[in-house]
Amino acid sequence: MTSTAHIKNLLEQQQEGWSLDQEFYTSQDIYRLEMDQVVTGNWIFAGHTSQLPEQGDYIVFTVAKESAIIVRTQNNELKAFANVCRHRGSRICLDKAGNNKKFSCPYHGWIYDLDGNLTAARAMNESFNKDDFGLHSVAMEILHGLIFISFGDNPPSMKHAAETLEEPFKMFGFKNLKVAAQKTYPIAANWKLAVENYMECYHCAPAHPEYAKMHTLMLDRKRRDRVQDHMLGKMESCGLKDICHEFEDLEAKAGSQGFGYSRTALFEGYETGSRDGKGIAPFLGEITGYDGGASDFSFGPVSFFLAYSDHVVGYVFTPVSQQQCECKIYWLVRKDAVEGKDYDKAELMWLWDITTYADERIIVDNQAGVNSRHYQSGPFSEMERTEKNFINWYLATMKNAVQSASAG
Amino acid sequence: MTSTAHIKNLLEQQQEGWSLDQEFYTSQDIYRLEMDQVVTGNWIFAGHTSQLPEQGDYIVFTVAKESAIIVRTQNNELKAFANVCRHRGSRICLDKAGNNKKFSCPYHGWIYDLDGNLTAARAMNESFNKDDFGLHSVAMEILHGLIFISFGDNPPSMKHAAETLEEPFKMFGFKNLKVAAQKTYPIAANWKLAVENYMECYHCAPAHPEYAKMHTLMLDRKRRDRVQDHMLGKMESCGLKDICHEFEDLEAKAGSQGFGYSRTALFEGYETGSRDGKGIAPFLGEITGYDGGASDFSFGPVSFFLAYSDHVVGYVFTPVSQQQCECKIYWLVRKDAVEGKDYDKAELMWLWDITTYADERIIVDNQAGVNSRHYQSGPFSEMERTEKNFINWYLATMKNAVQSASAG
Amino acid sequence: MTSTAHIKNLLEQQQEGWSLDQEFYTSQDIYRLEMDQVVTGNWIFAGHTSQLPEQGDYIVFTVAKESAIIVRTQNNELKAFANVCRHRGSRICLDKAGNNKKFSCPYHGWIYDLDGNLTAARAMNESFNKDDFGLHSVAMEILHGLIFISFGDNPPSMKHAAETLEEPFKMFGFKNLKVAAQKTYPIAANWKLAVENYMECYHCAPAHPEYAKMHTLMLDRKRRDRVQDHMLGKMESCGLKDICHEFEDLEAKAGSQGFGYSRTALFEGYETGSRDGKGIAPFLGEITGYDGGASDFSFGPVSFFLAYSDHVVGYVFTPVSQQQCECKIYWLVRKDAVEGKDYDKAELMWLWDITTYADERIIVDNQAGVNSRHYQSGPFSEMERTEKNFINWYLATMKNAVQSASAG
Repeated sequence: MTSTAHIKNLLEQQQEGWSLDQEFYTSQDIYRLEMDQVVTGNWIFAGHTSQLPEQGDYIVFTVAKESAIIVRTQNNELKAFANVCRHRGSRICLDKAGNNKKFSCPYHGWIYDLDGNLTAARAMNESFNKDDFGLHSVAMEILHGLIFISFGDNPPSMKHAAETLEEPFKMFGFKNLKVAAQKTYPIAANWKLAVENYMECYHCAPAHPEYAKMHTLMLDRKRRDRVQDHMLGKMESCGLKDICHEFEDLEAKAGSQGFGYSRTALFEGYETGSRDGKGIAPFLGEITGYDGGASDFSFGPVSFFLAYSDHVVGYVFTPVSQQQCECKIYWLVRKDAVEGKDYDKAELMWLWDITTYADERIIVDNQAGVNSRHYQSGPFSEMERTEKNFINWYLATMKNAVQSASAG
Repeated sequence: MTSTAHIKNLLEQQQEGWSLDQEFYTSQDIYRLEMDQVVTGNWIFAGHTSQLPEQGDYIVFTVAKESAIIVRTQNNELKAFANVCRHRGSRICLDKAGNNKKFSCPYHGWIYDLDGNLTAARAMNESFNKDDFGLHSVAMEILHGLIFISFGDNPPSMKHAAETLEEPFKMFGFKNLKVAAQKTYPIAANWKLAVENYMECYHCAPAHPEYAKMHTLMLDRKRRDRVQDHMLGKMESCGLKDICHEFEDLEAKAGSQGFGYSRTALFEGYETGSRDGKGIAPFLGEITGYDGGASDFSFGPVSFFLAYSDHVVGYVFTPVSQQQCECKIYWLVRKDAVEGKDYDKAELMWLWDITTYADERIIVDNQAGVNSRHYQSGPFSEMERTEKNFINWYLATMKNAVQSASAG
Repeated sequence: MTSTAHIKNLLEQQQEGWSLDQEFYTSQDIYRLEMDQVVTGNWIFAGHTSQLPEQGDYIVFTVAKESAIIVRTQNNELKAFANVCRHRGSRICLDKAGNNKKFSCPYHGWIYDLDGNLTAARAMNESFNKDDFGLHSVAMEILHGLIFISFGDNPPSMKHAAETLEEPFKMFGFKNLKVAAQKTYPIAANWKLAVENYMECYHCAPAHPEYAKMHTLMLDRKRRDRVQDHMLGKMESCGLKDICHEFEDLEAKAGSQGFGYSRTALFEGYETGSRDGKGIAPFLGEITGYDGGASDFSFGPVSFFLAYSDHVVGYVFTPVSQQQCECKIYWLVRKDAVEGKDYDKAELMWLWDITTYADERIIVDNQAGVNSRHYQSGPFSEMERTEKNFINWYLATMKNAVQSASAG
């Protein structure tokens, strides 16, 4: 039986509403397949336009074996290129960010302009045509300042996501944010276990005492509705609109980027995700007061945002190898906020820094158990609904991938 | 040619009385096969009942990717469970030992009682039946306080081993021992090279000066018989019986746990395995004096005990990956012995701590040579008889495994 | 499609004059194939006879999984043996160099004489014949003091290389050199990227400011001819002959060791590869003055020498695993030169120490880019001619290897 046939069988055997079988977390063949089809071929949050204010400003974004240069060109556009020289394949930009007038490969000095055109290459023979050796483009979409890139050849359409989220993006003024802090957390586990962990709050009560004091996602429906109603009552007077787009409904459209948006109340007394619950930065966008809520945005399988009233936390979960991944976290505040005066970096990072370290332990222990011959798929609880939807989407996407592989 | 067919051929080509061919120490396919069939499917020494005196006391025993919780239940029984939550597969117990009223999974808080029954799981839907989600049992047998577990579905029968060793176990009072010290030694080599190293004393003279001053296993038969006779003469007056069960004879019984027992003289002047040869702990069991001997117990492929007159050293050799394993050592003394008064922990550990570090170097250098294209199987000496028997048993067991795999 | 068939296809698809496709730098199957056929089966520079002046002197040379003992025997010959005991396969010599009257395996004490004969093995049974268990020989050739070994069964013939290089070897007095310093540089990349980097100086201008101040290889032909003429004019009066053997011409002969020799001018004012360009050690061989040149010797795929007028630098590039290799560097001076008086070790090492560290970074960044899905083979410049020849030779050798594998 070929490997593809085996994966196809396995995909068909998965039980709706249950976690995945062991092989999905241990097989190199499945990992290879999902890299192209599910991860790097999808849209991934790679930064915010505010990181690149000037011509020649660039950031480098690396996922697994892929690396992209995102740069502001001389025409004041943003473009994204593969960070791979067309001569012998060296990485071109070695720093994570900077400002360049041109890109000079550190190996043999081939020079590319900010639009990726090869402008100089010494000692090539006469038949060599520089026009044929521009940097490869990497797909990029910018939504209200958020930069998404895809290393695939046919990333899903962003159109529906962009249109539908227009309103929430404006509400929080995503266009006028800046990155106040950024940190990467290595996690020794398959990337899906990290995404699944982020997607459900069934574990919040036992695992995250700090988070569980403010966020209400782990409440049962009835109690949650009560706090939710309280927030909904305050929302309008704080400049916020009541909008909800369930992740699952939109995922159904094939070839279209999945996304979701919803706002959930914090516990009484909590204005934002801070140590004492009090505000820690200037209000975002159209917001004029604390409604006591926090909004979840999701974009495809690995990019998420949690929008408090005064700051946004961005999360990107990306594979490094079959049982190693990382979580990149961005803390975003209003562009005109001044560090030390309007916000304190350590306080801003506090909640999600401790929560992510706690999750790292949980996810690694999850992988350890999943590796055992005694691991068996288990049923999701009601509070793991979003994770269940993710698994459904994952299985559907992988089935398509296998179909293409068989046909190809 | 399939991998199984290749392994089958290879097994048939091995030469009686010679060491194994290179592939047995380098092939991932062989490693995968032997994990289930030879290692985790067999009985492994996992601790002593004295480590779990109270209800709720538990120890966690981990081998390669498998982890077991051994716990004293409310009915004062010992039980063993897979350390894998039935919900999403997380490890449940993260500490190596402790006391619990119940087991609460650190991920989502599913709660199991000491008998492994699931007693609480929040937010599951109505069709969910807690009775279906108890912890998986792990096979366990207790012989005179020694806890053996097996992660396999059909571990070999312990009956014959238990009956035959009844007398030796009583002699040393294994039931009334306690673990005075424990240490794990990582070894960057295939697990079989570590077991083979333990099984023969051909290397003791060149490699272990301390050990070689007291143990006589490396003597030739004639000289060994002379010291052996001296010990046999003293044995009875010291409360010890002359018993010998050769490992090889018993291994022949298919489906039955292999084991062995024999007592070997120390050099004159040595009462026990201590720095100066003098006794270092109270006499064990029925023993009333030093006969100048030490007894070897073996249980299946990876568990061994060396019983001096005043303490027992237990060894477990387990794989971590294809060329990485570990040796867990237990130092056991009489349960009523008091540390600092009746025995000194550092002195107790001295001999086997230095000997195991020396062996670690030897085994790693052995693996390095075996990895070379110039490695060739070599003939065993007379002093490697036990190792030869182990290799015979290993080959027979693997042949059965391959047969089952072909038929299955 | 079998792996061999796939590699065969791939080999045929490579474009003349372009760098290799990604798989050559990422595939385990290709790596396994090239180990035997291209690397360990070829001749590798392993040291200089001056390192073994006395009977019993030995050095250990290790490449990937292979290790050789090179020893001066009682008949004052040099011999090379696999560093693998014939009993159970342990490494025998654990130190990198030393002096022994005999080799005693640290595991079980089997003893071999300096000619590799087994002279003692305790406790073997009566049918055991020591004559059958001598150490395996490793192929060795000595050219003017340079020790080459091959772990393969059929290394290419050295005859033509030895005859043709007789004159250049004499000129530099290779027979009368000694190893003044030695250092190993680990590089996290496929070994071919390291060799390719060594073979071309297209990267010297952008990457090596120190080197680029003295070596002229990165000049275009016209400018290089000018400095070259200057050197050619001085050569004779300095005791040097104008000899050139292009690597590519000789490689064509199947079964014969490829090699090359040429001398290239340094920039004006540079006598040798030193910090200030002034001489740093006594003249080598027949040399009587500084002609302002440096000579390149190459021997097969992984061994190279750069001969200045007063010292020689030797380079060996060897794989450790698929994406890990190392560069061993030897600094050689005239045998009678006295450290501290005739040369300073730190000054001698300076240029190639900093240059190799810089190359290590370059090669690792090259591998990172080559691992990306956006990597694409690129065209070589004129200045990468030697590398192009190496790639041609590599592809031809691999095609033969695949043919043999298919037939075998």
